[in-house]
Amino acid sequence: MAPKYAPSLRARLPPLAFLLQVAFIVIFAFCVKIEDDGKDKGEAFIYSYAKFQDIHVMVFLGFGFLGTFLVRYGFSSSAFSLLVAAMAVQWATILKGFLLSHSLTWKFGIQLRSLLDAELCAASTLVAMGTVHGKTNPVQLLIFGLIEVTGFVLNQWIIQTFQRPLLQVFQTETQTPWLYSIVLINIFGALFGMITSHLLFRNNMQQKHEKEKVDRRSGLFAMFGTLFLWMFWPSLNSVLELNVTVICSTYLALAVSAVTAMAVSALCSSKGKINLVHVQNSLLSGGIAVGAVVTAPLAPWIAMTIGLCATLLSTLGFRYLKKHMLFAFDCHDTLGVLCAHALPGILGWFAQLILRLSRISHSTVAVRFAVHHICILLITVCVSLVMGIITGIILKWSFWKPQRDNKCYDDQAYWEFPHLLVDK
Amino acid sequence: MAPKYAPSLRARLPPLAFLLQVAFIVIFAFCVKIEDDGKDKGEAFIYSYAKFQDIHVMVFLGFGFLGTFLVRYGFSSSAFSLLVAAMAVQWATILKGFLLSHSLTWKFGIQLRSLLDAELCAASTLVAMGTVHGKTNPVQLLIFGLIEVTGFVLNQWIIQTFQRPLLQVFQTETQTPWLYSIVLINIFGALFGMITSHLLFRNNMQQKHEKEKVDRRSGLFAMFGTLFLWMFWPSLNSVLELNVTVICSTYLALAVSAVTAMAVSALCSSKGKINLVHVQNSLLSGGIAVGAVVTAPLAPWIAMTIGLCATLLSTLGFRYLKKHMLFAFDCHDTLGVLCAHALPGILGWFAQLILRLSRISHSTVAVRFAVHHICILLITVCVSLVMGIITGIILKWSFWKPQRDNKCYDDQAYWEFPHLLVDK
Amino acid sequence: MAPKYAPSLRARLPPLAFLLQVAFIVIFAFCVKIEDDGKDKGEAFIYSYAKFQDIHVMVFLGFGFLGTFLVRYGFSSSAFSLLVAAMAVQWATILKGFLLSHSLTWKFGIQLRSLLDAELCAASTLVAMGTVHGKTNPVQLLIFGLIEVTGFVLNQWIIQTFQRPLLQVFQTETQTPWLYSIVLINIFGALFGMITSHLLFRNNMQQKHEKEKVDRRSGLFAMFGTLFLWMFWPSLNSVLELNVTVICSTYLALAVSAVTAMAVSALCSSKGKINLVHVQNSLLSGGIAVGAVVTAPLAPWIAMTIGLCATLLSTLGFRYLKKHMLFAFDCHDTLGVLCAHALPGILGWFAQLILRLSRISHSTVAVRFAVHHICILLITVCVSLVMGIITGIILKWSFWKPQRDNKCYDDQAYWEFPHLLVDK
Repeated sequence: MAPKYAPSLRARLPPLAFLLQVAFIVIFAFCVKIEDDGKDKGEAFIYSYAKFQDIHVMVFLGFGFLGTFLVRYGFSSSAFSLLVAAMAVQWATILKGFLLSHSLTWKFGIQLRSLLDAELCAASTLVAMGTVHGKTNPVQLLIFGLIEVTGFVLNQWIIQTFQRPLLQVFQTETQTPWLYSIVLINIFGALFGMITSHLLFRNNMQQKHEKEKVDRRSGLFAMFGTLFLWMFWPSLNSVLELNVTVICSTYLALAVSAVTAMAVSALCSSKGKINLVHVQNSLLSGGIAVGAVVTAPLAPWIAMTIGLCATLLSTLGFRYLKKHMLFAFDCHDTLGVLCAHALPGILGWFAQLILRLSRISHSTVAVRFAVHHICILLITVCVSLVMGIITGIILKWSFWKPQRDNKCYDDQAYWEFPHLLVDK
Repeated sequence: MAPKYAPSLRARLPPLAFLLQVAFIVIFAFCVKIEDDGKDKGEAFIYSYAKFQDIHVMVFLGFGFLGTFLVRYGFSSSAFSLLVAAMAVQWATILKGFLLSHSLTWKFGIQLRSLLDAELCAASTLVAMGTVHGKTNPVQLLIFGLIEVTGFVLNQWIIQTFQRPLLQVFQTETQTPWLYSIVLINIFGALFGMITSHLLFRNNMQQKHEKEKVDRRSGLFAMFGTLFLWMFWPSLNSVLELNVTVICSTYLALAVSAVTAMAVSALCSSKGKINLVHVQNSLLSGGIAVGAVVTAPLAPWIAMTIGLCATLLSTLGFRYLKKHMLFAFDCHDTLGVLCAHALPGILGWFAQLILRLSRISHSTVAVRFAVHHICILLITVCVSLVMGIITGIILKWSFWKPQRDNKCYDDQAYWEFPHLLVDK
Repeated sequence: MAPKYAPSLRARLPPLAFLLQVAFIVIFAFCVKIEDDGKDKGEAFIYSYAKFQDIHVMVFLGFGFLGTFLVRYGFSSSAFSLLVAAMAVQWATILKGFLLSHSLTWKFGIQLRSLLDAELCAASTLVAMGTVHGKTNPVQLLIFGLIEVTGFVLNQWIIQTFQRPLLQVFQTETQTPWLYSIVLINIFGALFGMITSHLLFRNNMQQKHEKEKVDRRSGLFAMFGTLFLWMFWPSLNSVLELNVTVICSTYLALAVSAVTAMAVSALCSSKGKINLVHVQNSLLSGGIAVGAVVTAPLAPWIAMTIGLCATLLSTLGFRYLKKHMLFAFDCHDTLGVLCAHALPGILGWFAQLILRLSRISHSTVAVRFAVHHICILLITVCVSLVMGIITGIILKWSFWKPQRDNKCYDDQAYWEFPHLLVDK
């Protein structure tokens, strides 16, 4: 059978990327200045720089290598994650500057903190991208990424606006609006990705694609990415406030996750064998769930129990729910983002609710807090679904030249390989 | 020949792991609280957090990937190291809390420092695991790991108890008890592993197993693990006291190790070829040996000379001693832990003795110090051998379903691979 | 055809490496002491240690793994980089101690700062080594590395001596001499390597060597190395002065590089496919170019524009100039160091000139500054070319037993592989 070449992206990817990049530079030229207030020097600065770098490694190395377990999709997974994240960071910096800064002029200042916030938005995009890896081309991923960032920043803005009047009512019981984003990163990203993936569903996805599998080497590459995420997750959870409780709680919850994920994976297999891909993704669920509750003073055993429950949910989800989502809802999820990020995130969200309610003595305040707490989750779910539907509709357009079914999960469509070249 | 399936661990690994994990959570619930004394904030905290993270990366990434050079054992090496280390850290936290804290109640507090100490115990376990990699199943590894941690903490407790009266005699010449553990990590772990490996010896191990080899790709994965250990070893040696002498001495000794290891490996080969596996393990020997002497004010050339000698010993040991141990003592050592960790550690121990004796003017004090110094080594050797024998006897029990000989060094017994699955 | 064995290095590499290593230890014994001035403790020290470690990871992990994309050269690329860098650091410490310290005795002190400076020299060597990877044996690489370091330190000394009288003239407009080395690392290394590579040219290099290619796995290993360089490049640029402007500018320029490199690579390919090797090397060009200008207070959009131009230049250079250099100038460049390091560096150098001239109001000062600025570049170019020619002549000597043409880009000549061994 003669190999049919994949559709060339030469007329799509370079113009779009250039155009966006030049537009971003122009916006930066007119609206962004670096805010060097002089106090960001010496030891205080290394403090925030070290924190920044941990997140930096997680976003660009950790999330980028999660998808390298796909045997023939390693280049795309790592490099397109880098491409989208590099764009998303610039776009998030601009958006957050406009929406969330309180300056009245067109010019806003950025600091290391702004880039850190922007990287958190990029993390949300990379979580979402996990659902569509291998089924979309880089042009689609770029558009997907930019809409996701827009939605995520919009959601933050809505929550912030919605919270402001309420914050005055129960000042001490609730948190600062910014905090919510730590676990909402995972929930927003995962749901956004799921709904987009549903709209991009292709009929032949019901059968397992022959290239959608792991081998001895690609699994180890993904292990690297996962381990960097696992090791640095305490830094992510402590991005708002770095103290010993946050670090120790997250650390212990992650340790419990590691043990539980392997045990459950072996238990659910008929031959008692462990599935590396399931374990890799469930490894993080303890950290995600605890990320929602870290602001409350927390006994270590509570963090460990939440980690245990989140990992159970996540690993069982991988074994049973993932396939069910595919057959019942036409929703294919390459990296299992729903089980790896959304379920532990929502579990953590309700764990936080329970933990906080147990401390509010006054019942009226408790009910109001519960309603408020659940509303924020509902807003996030709605915004992510609406934005995801919009994205799905845009990406279905054949103008973007998605790859043919037999070229899914394959680098060959986008990357030069020496044995395929004649002239070079 | 029909493939005979490996014995399923479904009825062993999940129940054991769950039981232990739930037991740990219960113990944490009753006995552990996080000690947030308020001063662990801001810059002082980032100081200890950065140190903690270096060790974190070494334990979970570095040691875990040392064993990935085995062509078909990459998943197991990295993931089972993670499993055992995650368990060992929790268990060590509990044990050290009970044995070494001076509180009179059942409740003890943990800090970031406690987790760091626990990770050092886990490092010792991972060193020991190097001897049995590929010949034991994860259930055995879990039991192996927990007994090793118990032995290691016991050894620390014995040394501390033994030292207390002596410390009053020569206050200034000797060190704090805690320090000894830095190099004892390697000595204890290696000897514990060797004796266990001897008891688990199988008759057909005299011949080289066909899967016990390196290839172009697996060697590079192991190189990553080794490099992370090599690069961060100065942080490990400075875990007690971070100053410029410790960092520079360790750094220079490691640089000498890198050069020497490659030169000796090429010299010992009949065709002048270098063996990557030998080099990888000998790379660290300079750091291990210098780890014993860093507390004394040290001229750089002494550290470099110790590094040179340790690497010579280690690389020659790999070429000649490793095979001798196998044939003469029935002692198979997968990662060559004896040469990589025990020999440089013991060399460093005696180098420390000589360095310290050269400064003690009074001969009575010198003799007492020497006896004391050698006693600590002997205690460690005895405890490690006794605990190792106990472990070996327990692990020989066929109830644990060790893998068959032809499935040694093979992930296939424990991990799902897509091409081996029918229903999925 | 019977395999002809590669020439054995047993009589070359070990004696040379040992001799040099022992010589270095002797020099350290007589001339080097660690300068522990007591103030390098606690938080101030962790500040410089964290900075040091970022560079440490870049040099040993990042640069070492850049060359692993060659399918059969992974062991050599990573391990020989480690060997040469470990030697180069020791040699640079000694050289800089003698040449650049102002002490009158033979004894000079080293600090963490000295090791950091030495690592920057090693980085320059590793850049230069990129041109000759795969075509030289480790003995040649060792000599190559030591001469390169000598040249680089010599160049620093010349520039420093040359600048001293001039600095008094325009005190405020210009920088400290030391700063120049940040971008000169790339320019010096790349030109030194290019001219050496020209002299070592073999006739059959005009055709593409069959082993000089990337595959699915080796490309990902190189991606790891590249990502570590990319992520930590802001630390390298801020090695002199850590402030928010330097970090943010470099960060944004690198983000622009990531987007631009992929876009240009796809645009230049007839089928719209991206070349991973080109992208990996061009990723860094934004950081390199901005490294030249960071000391001036910089608007983010200027850094981004410089990043865009540098990446354009670099990626187009990879597509067209690299082949031209080979055919027209007999200059084979394995890692494309000319395009990846020299061109962006020179672009950044002139960008710095323009930026600085735009602030100097007085025309006489401006002209003098421009002449001075260009002179430093010319000096660097001359020293690198002269030293490179000397190195090339020395390395052409057949005494060093270079590998045969069919063993280029192949680990097999230097490393033991199990399937090639009979007795082991």
